[in-house]
Amino acid sequence: MPPSALFRLLEKLKTGSLDGFLVSKEENVSYLSNYHICDSYLLVSPKKVYFITDFRYVEEARKNIRGVEVFKYSNLFKDIGRLAGRLKIRRLGFEARDLNVASYGKIKEYSGLKIKLIDTFNLVEALRQIKEAQEVKYIKEAIGITGRAFEFLKGYLKAGLSELEIAGELERFIRFQGAAKSAFNIIVASGPNSSFPHAQVSKRRLKPGDALIIDLGVEVKGYKSDLTRVFFLDKILSIKRKIYQIVIGAQEKAIEAVKPGSEICKIDQAGREFIRSFGYGKYFGHSLGHGVGLEIHEEPAICAKNKSPVQAGMVFTIEPGIYLPGRFGMRVEDMVLVTEKGVEVLSGAINKSI
Amino acid sequence: MPPSALFRLLEKLKTGSLDGFLVSKEENVSYLSNYHICDSYLLVSPKKVYFITDFRYVEEARKNIRGVEVFKYSNLFKDIGRLAGRLKIRRLGFEARDLNVASYGKIKEYSGLKIKLIDTFNLVEALRQIKEAQEVKYIKEAIGITGRAFEFLKGYLKAGLSELEIAGELERFIRFQGAAKSAFNIIVASGPNSSFPHAQVSKRRLKPGDALIIDLGVEVKGYKSDLTRVFFLDKILSIKRKIYQIVIGAQEKAIEAVKPGSEICKIDQAGREFIRSFGYGKYFGHSLGHGVGLEIHEEPAICAKNKSPVQAGMVFTIEPGIYLPGRFGMRVEDMVLVTEKGVEVLSGAINKSI
Repeated sequence: MPPSALFRLLEKLKTGSLDGFLVSKEENVSYLSNYHICDSYLLVSPKKVYFITDFRYVEEARKNIRGVEVFKYSNLFKDIGRLAGRLKIRRLGFEARDLNVASYGKIKEYSGLKIKLIDTFNLVEALRQIKEAQEVKYIKEAIGITGRAFEFLKGYLKAGLSELEIAGELERFIRFQGAAKSAFNIIVASGPNSSFPHAQVSKRRLKPGDALIIDLGVEVKGYKSDLTRVFFLDKILSIKRKIYQIVIGAQEKAIEAVKPGSEICKIDQAGREFIRSFGYGKYFGHSLGHGVGLEIHEEPAICAKNKSPVQAGMVFTIEPGIYLPGRFGMRVEDMVLVTEKGVEVLSGAINKSI
Repeated sequence: MPPSALFRLLEKLKTGSLDGFLVSKEENVSYLSNYHICDSYLLVSPKKVYFITDFRYVEEARKNIRGVEVFKYSNLFKDIGRLAGRLKIRRLGFEARDLNVASYGKIKEYSGLKIKLIDTFNLVEALRQIKEAQEVKYIKEAIGITGRAFEFLKGYLKAGLSELEIAGELERFIRFQGAAKSAFNIIVASGPNSSFPHAQVSKRRLKPGDALIIDLGVEVKGYKSDLTRVFFLDKILSIKRKIYQIVIGAQEKAIEAVKPGSEICKIDQAGREFIRSFGYGKYFGHSLGHGVGLEIHEEPAICAKNKSPVQAGMVFTIEPGIYLPGRFGMRVEDMVLVTEKGVEVLSGAINKSI
């Protein structure tokens, strides 16, 4: 998305040992070219950058992409090999977690002995984790639509509706609000289903007294939101209220721990410690959050193992949860932007009261 | 899905040179284990079959999968290597179009020198292209819901609605009809947008006199439908009627060419020849159809290059189209099942009259 991204990647290549880089992962191609279509590749070198696509997209790509030569391939891997040769690339980096073995084999075959293929990991993902203003703007738009959908739900939910119907209603609502689509399969987990962190939408119908976890994200210009709220159908049992308050408290502690320069794992630790202090530690089985942007899960992972520093421009979720097997679960998920001085809760305006 | 699938795969391994096979592609794992969850693998050998998954899914998997040992991994690739060693596998096949280079490298590292990794292509996909009765039943359910959605649209469409709003309304409708979700991003291509075969849903609002292409698929138990109808808002210009009739005629010719034992390419040829005979050959730029099942595009490809025989049990689309750049496009897409004696149009009951 940001026009400077390609420039920053080239700077990064200079300091490394690569003189060319093949981008195959769809979101990375979108990010660097500021253009979203599938089945396309970028071949990056200090001399020139090729956007490599097929007959379906070539006209549109030529109209929309600036500063990069759009190349229409006929034999994808042969053409990549040929272009790499033309650019005199000797050490060609590729995305080892994306490229499959069959494609790798073909590139190797066609690029000849002069070009050495080098595994790389997270080169573009590392750039993507620091968002620029335009990216934050799209994410905020997506968050705004998600918030309005939660507001709409309050008036809509009632006993008798099925989880699947609620998901359908949300899919409709977000498009009438201008979202391109949902960012992932909406989670509507009611009653005992809420005790599974990754529940699949079922045909279960809401009953009086149910609590529901709704995990919803939408997409605006490729950028995503990811937010969770708990809804109560009517009276709230005191145990549910108690668990909910602990989750909210854990989220507050975690948000307080978002400090530029501090270790990312401390955020996870702060939320987890709070839940543990009430004796529910073993019922919080997932990590505290994850980056969000062109992908719904991207860098940085907000988990106990991540010792990297919190950096201004990062956007991630803060989503503690407590899941009591066979009974119910509670999760609250917000999205934050790390600023130079601290943290902005991007979804802070969306009601959490019950 | 079919319980016999794993058995047929083992038979296939016997005749080949492999004594073990690692299934990594999600739909192939689902198909062979009759169980749909992500991030899981199957390690198949004549001695034993392991379903390899993580802590999130292991309990559910043990309850739901029969005849296979469910193994909870802690270090995925190390564990795969270890299990392959335990099964005394020497030649381990893997899915070269699915496994990425990083995962391949790790399996190689952990499986040691005794195990040779062998590229394979389409081993499970070839089994999947012949559907069993239960699979056809789910596909028919998905087609039924799609047909009802098209029927609903007739009463709903009017000038002023946006493409995105129509997509939203469909997303809602199919869930109220019991579909788990849409099978792909619904295509709603109105007016000049219909001249792009892979148009993206836009915010364009319908105008009087518009024709719309709606390409909709839904998912039932993992199995998909994929159907296209053209809708006319009111009066139909004679040129649009003419093009529509040619597309319908091409579809009829193609369906007539679906004969068990005959070459698949003849189906494409029959539809294409018909369009060509009216001088519109160059405006039909995609292949005539594709298999549908657990994936929206799977084997067999119904294209000019496919010399394989038509076989009973295949399910695929027949979708000729004519796209006049900058003006409009027309596509009609149905799904057929090849029977022992001929062909059944699974979506034959869905209205095509205009």
